[in-house]
Amino acid sequence: MTSFSNLKRKENDLRTAYSKDIDGKVEGRPLLLAGWIEDIRNLGSIVFLIVRDNYGPFQAVVKGDLAKEALALPRQSYISIGGIVKPSSGSKAFDFELITDRITVLNRADSSLPLDATGRVKADMTTMINNRPLALRIPHEKDVIVGKSYLLKAARAHLLSKGFLEVDTPKIISTSSEGGADLFKVDYFGTPAFLAQSPQLYKEELVLGLDHVFEIAHYFRAEKSNTVRHLSEFLSMDMEAALYTKEDAMALLEEIVRKIYEEISSRGLVAIRIDEEAEFPRYSYRELIEFLKSRGYEIKVGDDLTTEHLREFGKEQDGFYFIVNWPLSIKPFYTMPSPQDKLFSESFDLMHKDVEIASGGQRIHDKNMLKQRIIECGLNPNDFEQHLRVFGWGMPPHSGWGVGVDRLLMRLMGKENIRDVVLYPRDAKRLVP
Amino acid sequence: MTSFSNLKRKENDLRTAYSKDIDGKVEGRPLLLAGWIEDIRNLGSIVFLIVRDNYGPFQAVVKGDLAKEALALPRQSYISIGGIVKPSSGSKAFDFELITDRITVLNRADSSLPLDATGRVKADMTTMINNRPLALRIPHEKDVIVGKSYLLKAARAHLLSKGFLEVDTPKIISTSSEGGADLFKVDYFGTPAFLAQSPQLYKEELVLGLDHVFEIAHYFRAEKSNTVRHLSEFLSMDMEAALYTKEDAMALLEEIVRKIYEEISSRGLVAIRIDEEAEFPRYSYRELIEFLKSRGYEIKVGDDLTTEHLREFGKEQDGFYFIVNWPLSIKPFYTMPSPQDKLFSESFDLMHKDVEIASGGQRIHDKNMLKQRIIECGLNPNDFEQHLRVFGWGMPPHSGWGVGVDRLLMRLMGKENIRDVVLYPRDAKRLVP
Repeated sequence: MTSFSNLKRKENDLRTAYSKDIDGKVEGRPLLLAGWIEDIRNLGSIVFLIVRDNYGPFQAVVKGDLAKEALALPRQSYISIGGIVKPSSGSKAFDFELITDRITVLNRADSSLPLDATGRVKADMTTMINNRPLALRIPHEKDVIVGKSYLLKAARAHLLSKGFLEVDTPKIISTSSEGGADLFKVDYFGTPAFLAQSPQLYKEELVLGLDHVFEIAHYFRAEKSNTVRHLSEFLSMDMEAALYTKEDAMALLEEIVRKIYEEISSRGLVAIRIDEEAEFPRYSYRELIEFLKSRGYEIKVGDDLTTEHLREFGKEQDGFYFIVNWPLSIKPFYTMPSPQDKLFSESFDLMHKDVEIASGGQRIHDKNMLKQRIIECGLNPNDFEQHLRVFGWGMPPHSGWGVGVDRLLMRLMGKENIRDVVLYPRDAKRLVP
Repeated sequence: MTSFSNLKRKENDLRTAYSKDIDGKVEGRPLLLAGWIEDIRNLGSIVFLIVRDNYGPFQAVVKGDLAKEALALPRQSYISIGGIVKPSSGSKAFDFELITDRITVLNRADSSLPLDATGRVKADMTTMINNRPLALRIPHEKDVIVGKSYLLKAARAHLLSKGFLEVDTPKIISTSSEGGADLFKVDYFGTPAFLAQSPQLYKEELVLGLDHVFEIAHYFRAEKSNTVRHLSEFLSMDMEAALYTKEDAMALLEEIVRKIYEEISSRGLVAIRIDEEAEFPRYSYRELIEFLKSRGYEIKVGDDLTTEHLREFGKEQDGFYFIVNWPLSIKPFYTMPSPQDKLFSESFDLMHKDVEIASGGQRIHDKNMLKQRIIECGLNPNDFEQHLRVFGWGMPPHSGWGVGVDRLLMRLMGKENIRDVVLYPRDAKRLVP
């Protein structure tokens, strides 16, 4: 007999198998499954139940008194259902079906539900978010969250295989980690504190003792902007590595995106295609400026690129690409100036068409240079005293990046709004559920 | 030639190998390593450098003008060092050494450092925390953080192998997730909000659509208590699974602790021993009460157990054990009452001697029972309206647990203070670094 599942159960069994286990190998055998009722088809003397579990739907044939019971159950009720596996007679969708001899109602659903959990009647995004747990019973909605789990698995596996250590750094901090505004304030036992917007300073410090580190965690930005690509709480994947150049960091990032793509496309969960042969194209910031000028935009070297600029350039792009060597003036203080031209920097963004997916580069490792840049950026070096000290302890040259995991997932899944890929999104107008 | 490392480097190389690569296989070959100078021994015409990288120390022999340069370097400076591998002459610690022909100083350390990074001069815990990145150069301090990374790796691998999906739920919430006090307040665009103390309600909701879920993330408790086992920001590993009983949840937890133990003990990183043969003992709450009475404590069934009680009982215990079936009255509202005796509950704590490591059990899945328990616990069901709705959508029976990862690591590593295993701890008196 096949071993159906990892479930270890001694008595009072409610499930011995999943829908995926129903096939020719178990014909004639008794199985016990559990799931929610997706559909009930009444053919008079016989009732067909379509029941869905974690792996998909199966068909159960119910007769006699049990059929009467089944007919009275609200859809989406959660049941345990037992029977014998037989080849199905006349079903196009199922080769095998369960000839039911036992139904245990584990939880009756309300008769009126806030959305159609089969997905046949489309619900708008707000309805989906307000009722996320139920929305996840719709296969393509669930696929996104399954994809996220595999995205994280593939990314971690690759980083660990390269000798990176997973670390965790504080989310409640005393001062701004990057000198930016837009931080959420926390009352920390009467002391004003903030929610971290990135692990930037901590991960750099840890390079000193741990060489290669990464962290995957939630961070927070109190931006009021209401766009399809911003949330005030988001999942970020951050790495920092000793002796990595900007090039090394970009190569690692591209590898990880490809590993993620392989993992989730092998499971049929991905909506886009990445060319396995061609490297992600690389464009310098200057090239983008030239391109935009040629399209009639009034822009000059040193200006930041707007959403509109990136949309214009992104139209020309197939998928992922890098923009490298941004002006130093528009990058955070810790960014390494380019050795050839100090107006530019050893920085890069990973883009997907018009969306920034990741940002990174080489960081300054010299204490005096870092202090100088803090001053030049209009920040007070006293606020960074604790951080600056660390750079006097033999800090290696290092590079790193941060990936917006939700944005990456959004594009891999072919979704247009970041709220479609986050279970319980948070923005300026949404704090529940 | 052996392939030394995964580093992909095209030009301006600073490292082609790690200390672990220095052995007989590369005798006579040129290598380039990078690391921090741990010790400088001046023998007059010849200088020995002990350099440490991510994998351990190695010895470099420096002569001539290079030796003069080396002597002038402050300890803990970060260097790239090249040379030829030769059998060492007269060293007890190293079989091979590097005959140096090139030193590149990548970052000069300050001549005065806040602690001895070799660990020979012991520093107190406060000094360690205030200078964590440097403290991590001490091997046994670093081992703790390496151990944490492997703990997470082993736990995730096991959960994923069992079909659990990794999810991420919000840390900024509108109301208390468990009806408890001690929440940090956040100003959310002018609306009062809180930092989550656990993913409890979210992970339960997600069972509805995803069946088996887990999350590993930071949570927050504004407890003023200053103990060796509490922090106000902590790493928690939480799971929730459909159709799991309390027994299933305990079995999974024990499996995971053993997997973690195997993973980190195989790397020589663990300080305790877990018996591979014997299951973790299980004691009922009632048994503990009887034990405590027999020791002269004035305690009766229904009372919560104090630290002192657990210390008394923990003394008798070898290591990990479960306490099961706690009184319903001292557990949160979502805890399932025991079918045999409704004054008790389908709950458990995983203990290590006197410390609570994890807490879990079966949850209530019936909407009316849950509402009733919310009222009995003195909470307002209107505050949980959003959550209660979900239980009308066919919620499966389910169980779960939450593990204090830092506490587990602390005990596996034989540490007595949770601040010893958290990179940047947060408590009522500490918000920096």
